[in-house]
Amino acid sequence: MRRPPSASITRLAMYSRFLEEYMIAKGAQSTINSQQLANFLDINPHQIRKDLSYFGKFGKRGLGYRVKELYEEINRILGLQRSWNMCLCGLGNLGSALAVYNGFRRMHLNIVAIFDNDPKKIGTKVGDIVVSHPRFIQQKVKRLNIEIAIITVPQASAQSIANSLVDAGIRAILNFAPVRLNAPSYVKLRNVDLATELVSLTHFLAYFK
Amino acid sequence: MRRPPSASITRLAMYSRFLEEYMIAKGAQSTINSQQLANFLDINPHQIRKDLSYFGKFGKRGLGYRVKELYEEINRILGLQRSWNMCLCGLGNLGSALAVYNGFRRMHLNIVAIFDNDPKKIGTKVGDIVVSHPRFIQQKVKRLNIEIAIITVPQASAQSIANSLVDAGIRAILNFAPVRLNAPSYVKLRNVDLATELVSLTHFLAYFK
Repeated sequence: MRRPPSASITRLAMYSRFLEEYMIAKGAQSTINSQQLANFLDINPHQIRKDLSYFGKFGKRGLGYRVKELYEEINRILGLQRSWNMCLCGLGNLGSALAVYNGFRRMHLNIVAIFDNDPKKIGTKVGDIVVSHPRFIQQKVKRLNIEIAIITVPQASAQSIANSLVDAGIRAILNFAPVRLNAPSYVKLRNVDLATELVSLTHFLAYFK
Repeated sequence: MRRPPSASITRLAMYSRFLEEYMIAKGAQSTINSQQLANFLDINPHQIRKDLSYFGKFGKRGLGYRVKELYEEINRILGLQRSWNMCLCGLGNLGSALAVYNGFRRMHLNIVAIFDNDPKKIGTKVGDIVVSHPRFIQQKVKRLNIEIAIITVPQASAQSIANSLVDAGIRAILNFAPVRLNAPSYVKLRNVDLATELVSLTHFLAYFK
């Protein structure tokens, strides 16, 4: 498989989200073509066909896609046909928001452990998860089959937490700490920079107002 | 100007961030070529030249870019050569995290008003900002010259808050509520979907582990 650009993966996630709603509205037996999908999502239909082309052939010429098949195939590509266990490191404001975020659970992305080094937080519960000290990362990752970690600790602690996660065998990290982390090349590290999201708005206001 | 894809804008923000650090380390008079920039950021150098090409000519063939000029030019493109006033709507966990987020202020993106309809929050202070009821949106937006709004209210209130913001003259909205909002076409609406960020990780684990 040619490795698709990460923007394609992000768009596939958007297609999946849309198709899920479309199936609920129109039924699992409905079909959709790339032009219709493009109109709904305000994307170029060529882009949609190109995003899907990385993963083989979809749909029938002139007939479009069977929504259910397309949805399931996209989810398989995205690794969303199964559930994943995640841990959350850092129960500040952002961590607390993510701990109860509905959007994860509906994609079968389950936070099953929460770590924080604040003695006032350790032992308290968020939903049915008891907050643990980070020294239990290794043990919990193994016991709970955790494969993905979310880092929401302050900048100064982020690298040491990342090191503990990598040592525990974690291969995929979503980092919200505003710092560039080092990790071995076999670890997939995705940085979320909330300020960058705003830049498309400032650019728009500066240029197109 | 050809309208650049939003992925280019996001990358420009990343170049800006990097060049800022590079200038601090190497001095404002330093130069850098697209290959070096590409190596540092782990991006294809053609991609960098293409992203910049949307906005005219940069650098001298063989000599690379003057870091300070490139940094300032990119910031001008991104609308970051000036400051912007923003309001935050919804002071739950996520809103509280964003209210004190350092990453905004360093880009001169200033939260100057916070709205929440919880009587227990109204009148309290976050930093030096007093939380107001959303009925004051119109008045505050005008008085404080607010041009960008961040929505972190629950899904059920998001559309009505968006309507109030648009009525008050806001043209750029960053929406964290997990719902597709309607707004007039002259309003730039950017949805942040935190679950989508995780999908590049599940895809990686499913395919490349």
